[in-house]
Amino acid sequence: MKTIIAVCVMSVLSFGAYAERQSQEPIKIIEPITGLDAKKVELGKTLWFEPRLSASNTISCNSCHNIAKGGVDNLPTSIGHKWAIGPINSPTVFNSDLNFVQFWNGRAKDLQEQAAGPIANPLEMAFTHQLAIDTLQSIPQYRQWFKETYGVDTITIDEVTDAIAVFEQTLRTPNAPFDQWLKGDDSALTVAQVEGYQLFKEKGCTACHAGPLAGGQMYQKMGLVKPFATDNPDIGRKAITGNEFDKFVFKVPTLRNIELTYPYFHDGSVWDLQEAVSMMADLQLGQKLTQEESEKITEFLRSLTGDLPQVTLPHLPPSSNETARPNI
Amino acid sequence: MKTIIAVCVMSVLSFGAYAERQSQEPIKIIEPITGLDAKKVELGKTLWFEPRLSASNTISCNSCHNIAKGGVDNLPTSIGHKWAIGPINSPTVFNSDLNFVQFWNGRAKDLQEQAAGPIANPLEMAFTHQLAIDTLQSIPQYRQWFKETYGVDTITIDEVTDAIAVFEQTLRTPNAPFDQWLKGDDSALTVAQVEGYQLFKEKGCTACHAGPLAGGQMYQKMGLVKPFATDNPDIGRKAITGNEFDKFVFKVPTLRNIELTYPYFHDGSVWDLQEAVSMMADLQLGQKLTQEESEKITEFLRSLTGDLPQVTLPHLPPSSNETARPNI
Repeated sequence: MKTIIAVCVMSVLSFGAYAERQSQEPIKIIEPITGLDAKKVELGKTLWFEPRLSASNTISCNSCHNIAKGGVDNLPTSIGHKWAIGPINSPTVFNSDLNFVQFWNGRAKDLQEQAAGPIANPLEMAFTHQLAIDTLQSIPQYRQWFKETYGVDTITIDEVTDAIAVFEQTLRTPNAPFDQWLKGDDSALTVAQVEGYQLFKEKGCTACHAGPLAGGQMYQKMGLVKPFATDNPDIGRKAITGNEFDKFVFKVPTLRNIELTYPYFHDGSVWDLQEAVSMMADLQLGQKLTQEESEKITEFLRSLTGDLPQVTLPHLPPSSNETARPNI
Repeated sequence: MKTIIAVCVMSVLSFGAYAERQSQEPIKIIEPITGLDAKKVELGKTLWFEPRLSASNTISCNSCHNIAKGGVDNLPTSIGHKWAIGPINSPTVFNSDLNFVQFWNGRAKDLQEQAAGPIANPLEMAFTHQLAIDTLQSIPQYRQWFKETYGVDTITIDEVTDAIAVFEQTLRTPNAPFDQWLKGDDSALTVAQVEGYQLFKEKGCTACHAGPLAGGQMYQKMGLVKPFATDNPDIGRKAITGNEFDKFVFKVPTLRNIELTYPYFHDGSVWDLQEAVSMMADLQLGQKLTQEESEKITEFLRSLTGDLPQVTLPHLPPSSNETARPNI
């Protein structure tokens, strides 16, 4: 009887802590996704690894958003067709469906719209939507899969990007130590991590890095208090809106799995996480962190690494004699 | 009772057919591999997908021997560092441990020796063994894994290539329709496939394409009866032995999963399997196949596609501040 009562009390306490932290903390739990169409997920996964969506037949979505590497390529900016050097750091695909818009400058409203971009970008996959579709349509197995999944005989870019976007939604990383702590498990974080999180809030980081992504919910100027020195010519949102006040305004990136997604910032110029923390405090908040403060915040950030997706490689169906040859 | 007797008779017949075909046919069954060290397999898999073994940190073993694409890249010749175009067609990694030597010209005696090649090849991963080792040694998780797996504090290229070679041994493709037929299941092949296999033997293809790989057991001259026209400058075994009679002599490639491993030949010049079959008969055996004959042999070759490996992507451990930056 004593045991039962103890368990009940602990459950209530645990639930209480959960409810309290969930409602009070600015960073929210990442939940795994459920209810997706299994056929779309499987087709989308196949397309995710499909280098025949690129002109050279060598670059797939996974080349720059590598599921083995935190959903990024760990390069300052990506390498594309014929070794083209891309203009901006590749954002992680993990949890990316939770971003309020896609791309650093928010030019795509969702993952489906985003997925159409790289295929036709001459610095990335360097194909066209029509050529990508022609390639898929020339492969009997893809014709069958699109028929079974979308009921279409003629594939369009809409089904391709929809399937990719559905697959991307599976790439959530739940169950990070920080999420376990949010759910009431006090032992999930070290003392330094809890202190780091308190500092993270007190210094004002959560003004931008909030929500389940600890980011991804708003735009902000890079260099809000002090200018950010960079060789990268990207002008941010101004390229979309034409407004001068949108110059160097970018989507606030997620801090989920941040220890895996170096190098940091839209120009990929900073490789050390603690250095990135100190720079952010300085440039965005006008605060000089002590060594100990930046160490603790960095420790807290490491608690945002969740369970990484377990993805089994698909087997891509062979081309037919009608399939266009690679342009290398 | 009748049922039991019938089952027994079928078993005996089945076993008889199995024993008979196994001993009499020149192509042998591919068996899955067992008894490998699980830690070495797991570490080897991680290294297989590790682009930090390349100078640019973007090219891994899987780039040219893609497990999602029949163990190849489906290019005439591979694309390497800074978009270098390689000299020869990338052979499949599937079942590759069953080759009697490695590389087209047999310059490596086994998979471990082979694995050391691409890392340091300036047209491929363009790194050095020392830089690759330095990279691994700079990553705490790799230090721990090599310690646990090989008992070493200081990683050398030998452990790296050993682990990769052990993982590669898992990439067998058993249970092809042809193997089921070899085991006595007459329904595993179509009539055309059985006829194609008879033609394959009668025309003399099995002189070279025999054993479990249907190849991979000997060298042979490309253009044995008639010269093979190619722009590819590779002179084959002559580069190794210096002997004029080894000019254009290459390892006979496997025909396992051949429908997936286009384009064909060491120069990757032929994309259509049936055309490759006709050319081989002509150039190697001095025989002109009819359209029907080449169709049937091609149908037989499609029965050599086995169960493809189910490989879950690893999660690569993050670099440290001591890890060298990519050279792009």
